[in-house]
Amino acid sequence: MRVDDEAGVLAANATFYEAFDRCDVATMERLWARRVLVACIHPGWAPLFGRDEVLKSWHAILTGPGAPRISCSNPVVHGLGDAAALVVCVEVMPGGAMVATNVFVREDGAWRMVQHHAGPVAGLPVSDHGGGRTVH
Amino acid sequence: MRVDDEAGVLAANATFYEAFDRCDVATMERLWARRVLVACIHPGWAPLFGRDEVLKSWHAILTGPGAPRISCSNPVVHGLGDAAALVVCVEVMPGGAMVATNVFVREDGAWRMVQHHAGPVAGLPVSDHGGGRTVH
Repeated sequence: MRVDDEAGVLAANATFYEAFDRCDVATMERLWARRVLVACIHPGWAPLFGRDEVLKSWHAILTGPGAPRISCSNPVVHGLGDAAALVVCVEVMPGGAMVATNVFVREDGAWRMVQHHAGPVAGLPVSDHGGGRTVH
Repeated sequence: MRVDDEAGVLAANATFYEAFDRCDVATMERLWARRVLVACIHPGWAPLFGRDEVLKSWHAILTGPGAPRISCSNPVVHGLGDAAALVVCVEVMPGGAMVATNVFVREDGAWRMVQHHAGPVAGLPVSDHGGGRTVH
């Protein structure tokens, strides 16, 4: 994966967490892919499929009273050919951490989210080794 | 994604669960990719990166006393370009279910696993709508 593609994927992943943390519904809607089926697995939820169902869930989370502050730590990018990549990262929230898999596809020149899967993790050490590791 | 590619991805996903269910370490080792960094997120674990670390974990699970019987239900394939795909599916075990994201890349003509992320899910209805849905 090219360096600028790696940077683009990390930027899209960062945009996701900024939108989540700031409860920014419009940015979240722009980030999700339009041309492929998307899927989202919120912690403990059954999988949601399709842009309508996924964005409805984000609207409820981001406009609800319990939206957590969240930040992303230790993102690791895996290139999946020229048009897709996945990021494994740790989601840091007040009182704990989750681990997430985020998958992106290149769509109309932008990296857009096609899947988010977050779940609980026990006893995770969170280091701060910079902006991310990338794997080719 | 072409029909034979879809079938190949579903077959690789099925091979993963057969190897898991049968505690077949050799098949599990063959299934994981060699040319890209692999990652595995077992339920509740911190992410494991790299073939050595991931396969060491599978060896421990598959040769240990607590390996669960497991089967895969409702796999949904998402094509990610010509050389990668992800599968979202439900893992059915005695007493409960997990939800999983499995990512595959085409490597030396075969679909090989590059990532597995499984986690708990509450109140999941498990239907039996055949061998899988595919999304283009």
